[in-house]
Amino acid sequence: MVNVTVWNEYRHEKSDEAVRKVYPEGIHGQIASFLEASSFHVRTATLDEPEHGLTEEVLANTDVLVWWGHIAHKEVSDEIVERVHKKVLEGMGLVALHSGHMSKIFMKLMGTSCDLKWREAEEKERLWVVNPSHPIAEGLGEYIELEKEEMYGEHFDIPIPDELIFMSWFEGGNVFRSGCTYRRGNGKIFYFQPGHETYPTYYHEDIQKVIINGVKWCQPTTYGYPKYGHSEALEKIQPKGE
Amino acid sequence: MVNVTVWNEYRHEKSDEAVRKVYPEGIHGQIASFLEASSFHVRTATLDEPEHGLTEEVLANTDVLVWWGHIAHKEVSDEIVERVHKKVLEGMGLVALHSGHMSKIFMKLMGTSCDLKWREAEEKERLWVVNPSHPIAEGLGEYIELEKEEMYGEHFDIPIPDELIFMSWFEGGNVFRSGCTYRRGNGKIFYFQPGHETYPTYYHEDIQKVIINGVKWCQPTTYGYPKYGHSEALEKIQPKGE
Amino acid sequence: MVNVTVWNEYRHEKSDEAVRKVYPEGIHGQIASFLEASSFHVRTATLDEPEHGLTEEVLANTDVLVWWGHIAHKEVSDEIVERVHKKVLEGMGLVALHSGHMSKIFMKLMGTSCDLKWREAEEKERLWVVNPSHPIAEGLGEYIELEKEEMYGEHFDIPIPDELIFMSWFEGGNVFRSGCTYRRGNGKIFYFQPGHETYPTYYHEDIQKVIINGVKWCQPTTYGYPKYGHSEALEKIQPKGE
Amino acid sequence: MVNVTVWNEYRHEKSDEAVRKVYPEGIHGQIASFLEASSFHVRTATLDEPEHGLTEEVLANTDVLVWWGHIAHKEVSDEIVERVHKKVLEGMGLVALHSGHMSKIFMKLMGTSCDLKWREAEEKERLWVVNPSHPIAEGLGEYIELEKEEMYGEHFDIPIPDELIFMSWFEGGNVFRSGCTYRRGNGKIFYFQPGHETYPTYYHEDIQKVIINGVKWCQPTTYGYPKYGHSEALEKIQPKGE
Repeated sequence: MVNVTVWNEYRHEKSDEAVRKVYPEGIHGQIASFLEASSFHVRTATLDEPEHGLTEEVLANTDVLVWWGHIAHKEVSDEIVERVHKKVLEGMGLVALHSGHMSKIFMKLMGTSCDLKWREAEEKERLWVVNPSHPIAEGLGEYIELEKEEMYGEHFDIPIPDELIFMSWFEGGNVFRSGCTYRRGNGKIFYFQPGHETYPTYYHEDIQKVIINGVKWCQPTTYGYPKYGHSEALEKIQPKGE
Repeated sequence: MVNVTVWNEYRHEKSDEAVRKVYPEGIHGQIASFLEASSFHVRTATLDEPEHGLTEEVLANTDVLVWWGHIAHKEVSDEIVERVHKKVLEGMGLVALHSGHMSKIFMKLMGTSCDLKWREAEEKERLWVVNPSHPIAEGLGEYIELEKEEMYGEHFDIPIPDELIFMSWFEGGNVFRSGCTYRRGNGKIFYFQPGHETYPTYYHEDIQKVIINGVKWCQPTTYGYPKYGHSEALEKIQPKGE
Repeated sequence: MVNVTVWNEYRHEKSDEAVRKVYPEGIHGQIASFLEASSFHVRTATLDEPEHGLTEEVLANTDVLVWWGHIAHKEVSDEIVERVHKKVLEGMGLVALHSGHMSKIFMKLMGTSCDLKWREAEEKERLWVVNPSHPIAEGLGEYIELEKEEMYGEHFDIPIPDELIFMSWFEGGNVFRSGCTYRRGNGKIFYFQPGHETYPTYYHEDIQKVIINGVKWCQPTTYGYPKYGHSEALEKIQPKGE
Repeated sequence: MVNVTVWNEYRHEKSDEAVRKVYPEGIHGQIASFLEASSFHVRTATLDEPEHGLTEEVLANTDVLVWWGHIAHKEVSDEIVERVHKKVLEGMGLVALHSGHMSKIFMKLMGTSCDLKWREAEEKERLWVVNPSHPIAEGLGEYIELEKEEMYGEHFDIPIPDELIFMSWFEGGNVFRSGCTYRRGNGKIFYFQPGHETYPTYYHEDIQKVIINGVKWCQPTTYGYPKYGHSEALEKIQPKGE
């Protein structure tokens, strides 16, 4: 059984009535709920818990970490970021959602500014599948339509994705690479753009499907961790004349 | 004319007679020499200069930075690393040579450990071209043979290269992705593995060709730097009913 | 000097007054005109010439072939397609424009159906740059806007591009991977979507810039053509006991 | 349950005692045997059966096709190749083994010559994993060592793989991209190099593991087949003034 930890900043829900109305149990609560229903073993963790809820023990028992953060990226301690980074390189999967693109952990794994254009305008978004045989697109139609989402637009300053799964159309005239995968060390990473806190995006069945598929895709393989450092020759080396 | 700054740690040459014998003007001196002959405008910079020779002014006049470092990666100040990182995202090219794979700047751009297997054994290396139409392979034959190089072997913990140009065969039984390109922000990056300090690798004509080609490939384009942040709609957005 | 051959089906211009009005010298005439002004050595060739204008001699003197075809793909003889295919694998560049996505030569190089969605509706298109440091984007702003273009939409059944340069937004709600590069054999290929015959797309300065950049990018390198077939060992092989 | 059809040319085994000794039930028999043990539903098909054993009915019930061919590629009828090609684009997986690189179906899907260097010299091969988190590498160590294999060497004239899983070292001084994935249409393709007919490669446990993993990876997803052709607008298009 895949062990999933859903991490949420959990601030908007406390300070903003409109967000609380959409996500009374927190964004993490809603995400955990449909992941559990899909028979993952799920726990949650939030910024204001000790060690942000991401203790060594929790991470040791996490196969895939789902990350939602927005206004408090800077409050995440560098020590915990190092810890999560190390775990990803060792094989833990990471699903970064929405404004998670500017979380410290995602930026550290990418090496770029991860910046983009944005607009909050109750705007229609249509996510087109461009990689139809990818397991993350399993069970979808040709596109997902969201009546209202925050616009995230190109240029999106990320490394070229290993795989591009979704390309989004926005009503206001922008496009976006809205579903991207990366491999870093032994870990797999899936970035998925939808999920602004004031819209009911995580109740949308196809969005749930994508996140479920993403968690499955990100789960660790049982490949032995590579050995680095000094290495003896596997074949005989001929002496070179001086 | 392309402005190139060749950065070298410049420590082995001072402390080790064997290295000084191979590179009496320093590794940077030798690299600068064949780049100048290829009509780049070249300057050099080294670790022990103020600001490691990488002042704001020097970087403002650098199109492509060539980086050789090995035993003193940790002595490079984080402030200078931030400065170089910012410049790469803005468009400056970076050619990382040999042990530069574990320099702070390369690791920051990659997001992984950049670790690998290694062995110093006067070992034959053969670099096979696997991307023959790439400008970095221009003018080469099917492979480059080096009588003696340090073995760098897989698994090499890097992000999947945007482009793989060379794959190396080592006498002792290992293989290595020895020529890789990446894009980060507006900047282009070329990693090229040969160049152990005790071997005369940077006198080899084909190795010089590759570095010259790499510098050309990494030079900035004149694309306007993308605009990030809040963005007005380009098309009219329909009001959504509540 | 780069030798460019601009190939055009040249049928719409003969049969359709509206097209002739936009392109009185043929689509090939207009493309040749701005390529010449950019100091390429340019010739043209069309479907109804003997051997479609693509004799062995013409191809032997072509560095980059630009291809525009639409309603008469099937009239291109298989023999000429084989000839062009062989030349691309040997290193000739190919710039496939607009409906060239379903030309025999493009389909043969891709291995897929190359099918897509389409609509002629005087529709606004906005081509966003998603690979800003790529030489094909040199000199552009963040996007190119075309007041009217034919919609080409996802899913576009192509192999995953080696490099994605442009992503298009269409007024009617679709997106499209509108600028893609591929390598096949020693040859480089650039597919660029705009250019419906009834719209003045090839008079647009930025579209011209992209095609000029594309031709430059596609030009052959001087790498020696790889040797295939039986090969002697480069190292001594140990006898294996039976 | 995944339906696998193992296709074999089945000629060497009939004409050559040495091959028959290694594979008394045919290469297809041995491959079918370990796939069945891994609980796939397996059938076999061979060149000399009617329609090469690949009737419409067989293909309609095939999720993944495994292909081994060598000396009789030209005897495979173009009609059957078209049929298999269509099925791959619709979603059927294809695992191409060893000399399958020059089968008509693989070449048609690639668009290149698929040529390479080769040598039969009872040579040691070591396949290094370069994509450790990929499901095709699941359960392996850092490399697979084969005491004797046929050398396949670079340059290998294939499109740049979507994913590179294995890089091989050969005793005689060559390297090879020995495990590669591609997507074509809705179908996934895995090319895996080992398997010369006179060596017992398909009895090697790790080689079996890779083929089993490859078949799993290639299985179709349930994504609805994309719709191509003329498409109505999803959004209202503004009339343009003339």
